[in-house]
Amino acid sequence: MLTLYYSPQSCALASHIALQEAGATYDAARLDFSREEQRQAAYLKINPKGRVPALATDRGILTETPAILFYIAQTYPQARLAPLDDAFALGRIQAFNSYLCSTVHVAHAHRMRAYRWADDAAAQAEMKRKATQNVADCFALIESEMFTGPYVMGDAYTVADPYLYTLATWLEGDGVDPARFPKILAHRDRMAARPAVKAVTALHN
Amino acid sequence: MLTLYYSPQSCALASHIALQEAGATYDAARLDFSREEQRQAAYLKINPKGRVPALATDRGILTETPAILFYIAQTYPQARLAPLDDAFALGRIQAFNSYLCSTVHVAHAHRMRAYRWADDAAAQAEMKRKATQNVADCFALIESEMFTGPYVMGDAYTVADPYLYTLATWLEGDGVDPARFPKILAHRDRMAARPAVKAVTALHN
Repeated sequence: MLTLYYSPQSCALASHIALQEAGATYDAARLDFSREEQRQAAYLKINPKGRVPALATDRGILTETPAILFYIAQTYPQARLAPLDDAFALGRIQAFNSYLCSTVHVAHAHRMRAYRWADDAAAQAEMKRKATQNVADCFALIESEMFTGPYVMGDAYTVADPYLYTLATWLEGDGVDPARFPKILAHRDRMAARPAVKAVTALHN
Repeated sequence: MLTLYYSPQSCALASHIALQEAGATYDAARLDFSREEQRQAAYLKINPKGRVPALATDRGILTETPAILFYIAQTYPQARLAPLDDAFALGRIQAFNSYLCSTVHVAHAHRMRAYRWADDAAAQAEMKRKATQNVADCFALIESEMFTGPYVMGDAYTVADPYLYTLATWLEGDGVDPARFPKILAHRDRMAARPAVKAVTALHN
């Protein structure tokens, strides 16, 4: 049995959608970040990083979105969420997801969580100010260089799709107009219409 | 034929070591960051992100360290650089490498590349100041919660090892005393003694 630990509207949404698309049997355990549940002892035993997502499996805990997404793809092969035996095609998915976690999510995080990287209030304000441009630059690069369409990698839906979708839902909050990126905006609409996305999104409100 | 694009002492060292450990036939193309070669048109055709590493393959380019490391493990299975058919064990490696790219490398980058996240000089100085603590916190978590030993995942050498090694070589530059992390320091010494690491390191001076 799997349990996904998540907080609403966080990047855990990507893993949540992937579990649903895979047809997995799983529980979803919601953390309330406003009460700092992710920093309480009970959760730190599950994920000492104090972050979501975390996926409890029969063998132990997995963390980090790209790792959880690949685990889901590998353990539910019939869902065809990644080309498991095509190292190059798989490498492109992994590269895309790695870019999302190490650059795009990080660019976004400087708006609301700048305290991670500076204690000074003025410095945090400067980071927050630049975050909008950085997020826009990332999505411009995805739009022009990475996104194939209709799904991220082309005709096949993969674990890159729920991850891009998740980060794209943050654009307006980051002060970026998604209309600047027509392919990504169409993808977001296409994703939002999928039954798995609708089912999971209801749990993130 | 593979070509690895790298700059000395960058995170590309991890992929470079992995290629060598795998016994791959490859070229290594060195970029001079002091001349900003990574931002010139010739390289931006290879990697529009203007970063290293990039791995040119017969089918196209792969980027991002976790993706390249997994590609090497998958395409040189005889080197046994990852438990390819054990989804949970593989997920732990992927989670570790994802943490390195999205959190540890990012913490480090705020020391020398704070300009990515703020234009203001005072804000950059604040980020640089906090980077030492953030890097130390990351390595403390790796030491206490993630590192098994003698290699990252236990007895088996995997693609998590060259990546941790690479980031651990930056500790002194970040103002962090590696003696605070005895398991990681012993791992760094163990890695430095490997023939593949010695061979590659000579190209990073």
